[in-house]
Amino acid sequence: MKIETKVANFTSPLYLESGRILEPYSIAYETYGVLNQDKSNVILVCHALSGSHHAAGIYEGDRKAGWWDGLIGDGKAIDTQRYFVICSNTIGSCFGSTSPMSPCYPSIKPYRLKFPVVTIKDMIQAQKQLLSSLDIHHLRAIVGGSMGGMQALQFGVDFPNFADEIISLAATYATQPWTIGFNKVAVEAIRKDPRFKNGNYDIDDFKEDGLDGLAIGRIAGHISYLSPNSMDDKFGRNYVANDGLFELFGRYEVERYMEYNTANFSRLFDPLSYLYIVKAINTFNLTRGYDTLYNAILRIKAKLHLISFKSDYLFFPSEMEHIHKMMQRNSQESTYLEVDSNYGHDAFLVEIDKFEYRIREILK
Amino acid sequence: MKIETKVANFTSPLYLESGRILEPYSIAYETYGVLNQDKSNVILVCHALSGSHHAAGIYEGDRKAGWWDGLIGDGKAIDTQRYFVICSNTIGSCFGSTSPMSPCYPSIKPYRLKFPVVTIKDMIQAQKQLLSSLDIHHLRAIVGGSMGGMQALQFGVDFPNFADEIISLAATYATQPWTIGFNKVAVEAIRKDPRFKNGNYDIDDFKEDGLDGLAIGRIAGHISYLSPNSMDDKFGRNYVANDGLFELFGRYEVERYMEYNTANFSRLFDPLSYLYIVKAINTFNLTRGYDTLYNAILRIKAKLHLISFKSDYLFFPSEMEHIHKMMQRNSQESTYLEVDSNYGHDAFLVEIDKFEYRIREILK
Repeated sequence: MKIETKVANFTSPLYLESGRILEPYSIAYETYGVLNQDKSNVILVCHALSGSHHAAGIYEGDRKAGWWDGLIGDGKAIDTQRYFVICSNTIGSCFGSTSPMSPCYPSIKPYRLKFPVVTIKDMIQAQKQLLSSLDIHHLRAIVGGSMGGMQALQFGVDFPNFADEIISLAATYATQPWTIGFNKVAVEAIRKDPRFKNGNYDIDDFKEDGLDGLAIGRIAGHISYLSPNSMDDKFGRNYVANDGLFELFGRYEVERYMEYNTANFSRLFDPLSYLYIVKAINTFNLTRGYDTLYNAILRIKAKLHLISFKSDYLFFPSEMEHIHKMMQRNSQESTYLEVDSNYGHDAFLVEIDKFEYRIREILK
Repeated sequence: MKIETKVANFTSPLYLESGRILEPYSIAYETYGVLNQDKSNVILVCHALSGSHHAAGIYEGDRKAGWWDGLIGDGKAIDTQRYFVICSNTIGSCFGSTSPMSPCYPSIKPYRLKFPVVTIKDMIQAQKQLLSSLDIHHLRAIVGGSMGGMQALQFGVDFPNFADEIISLAATYATQPWTIGFNKVAVEAIRKDPRFKNGNYDIDDFKEDGLDGLAIGRIAGHISYLSPNSMDDKFGRNYVANDGLFELFGRYEVERYMEYNTANFSRLFDPLSYLYIVKAINTFNLTRGYDTLYNAILRIKAKLHLISFKSDYLFFPSEMEHIHKMMQRNSQESTYLEVDSNYGHDAFLVEIDKFEYRIREILK
């Protein structure tokens, strides 16, 4: 599969939920497969906090495939021999779409903290504009996990006739204080890092040594993406061989994992983007804009498919089940699957073999 | 109850598990109630990570009572009309016992990072020395929660004939990687804070503005002390009234709680002490020094009482139940109670009314 990132540029304003506008704006995206003549084979895939539009395939010269490559491709559950798959980088993210480090028109200086707060509603508005620009006005399905699952749900509520099927994995109807608490570690660690300079860092400052605050915040993230069982399976109480048990900074394997992964991450991800996306996750609430959650969910006309993971400690299965029960009470079409996984929230990325059969069934 | 902190000074060495020694050393402690003639009414209470020897009563002019005041006092579950209660500040903690900021004899300069790593085993050795100095050689009971519960268990294993009853709450047989992960946030946030200066900070530096790294690490701590349900009950998705929903740094109530509590904490607790105590918690493993966990637990001769909390997300009830099952398999005397609480790990401090009846029964 030949992979190429495209960028769509918009000169018309994007009206944000906050009342502010984003103008102009750009959206980076990738497509896989071929659009059929009546444009009836389009699937939109939505990414999570640290993801990007690079959902599948391998770039030339690269070694790592897109984040859902196990699910998207020829003959895979989201079959690119049948479907035309689109994945775009969300507004606010640092991988090519308009974000806090984009120039604040008419200036050529970046927005930084002047960037408007964006929400999940805004992210899907932007994606809708992208689809319109491609002359796509109806989707076969919208699929996403975590923050991507939020977008899928929000699409279902805000644009009831836009997709036939909504598949939301490892998400919720509204971000709970437990998750906002985890995000708070990152917010404070980034803000209080002197190298963050209240957002006035040089964009190249973190190429070699990532921002510590982002790495520290990401440790809390990793805890919430894993689970007590998956950590036990993965690391146990193993100690790093060369570290002494009685050295203050000697490390357990789990500590080395956290250090290594978060240091890498802090070199690759923009701290301002992280703050803005975390804000979008925190403010996610299907109810906002409608009187009640019941009223919001009542709007959904697509078939809704909810997939949760038993050991998810970030968005608990009960949160997804809550949506399903509400749908059922209203006789709206809804299915619910709780995947038996030890892998925690990350299961939607790493245990694809446990649920790809379900995606296949839905898209048959 | 008149409360007074005493300090016991020891000139003989404390032999540490690491092979290093601590010499001289001091232990701050408090006692409540009156020692009877045959010294058969002594109860040792052990504190948690951020606790101290001030377990009960109110200091003159102070407003806040000791951390287990609801449990310890005249007519209370740990009845000071009957029992002589001792609570000492652990070695390494910053409230009066020898710690990283104590002078490194013969120098008058503080140890800082030269302070030896101390373990739960070392903490109880030190307490045993304190008791010896008070000519107390047998205890009616040892009671503690969280790190205090670890100490109680370790006492039971290392000194099988020392106490009649061991009451351990909200603890484990060995700290699991999930918990080590939470602690890692604090370790990295403290280490990477420039004001930490690799441990060479001025002791007065944090009186006004606490160390940010400690505050950030403590946010992760608070998450692990609460539970999804308790956060939902306490904060819901309420937004701080004066913050705008679409302000990047506008806050949910849960975020304000985290900010407020952790900022206070960072002014009161020494960062080096925090690192050393977290290390003691991470390295806690009843098995160490014995061939197997089975062999370690087989040593326990006291009646063991294990109390866990249903919603504890730091030390899961299953960890305590594991010890109980092992005890039962060996026909050792053991009781197990899982308290039905939504309050998370903190329940051992804040939901005393839910388990004090059990402590009362045990000590009858």
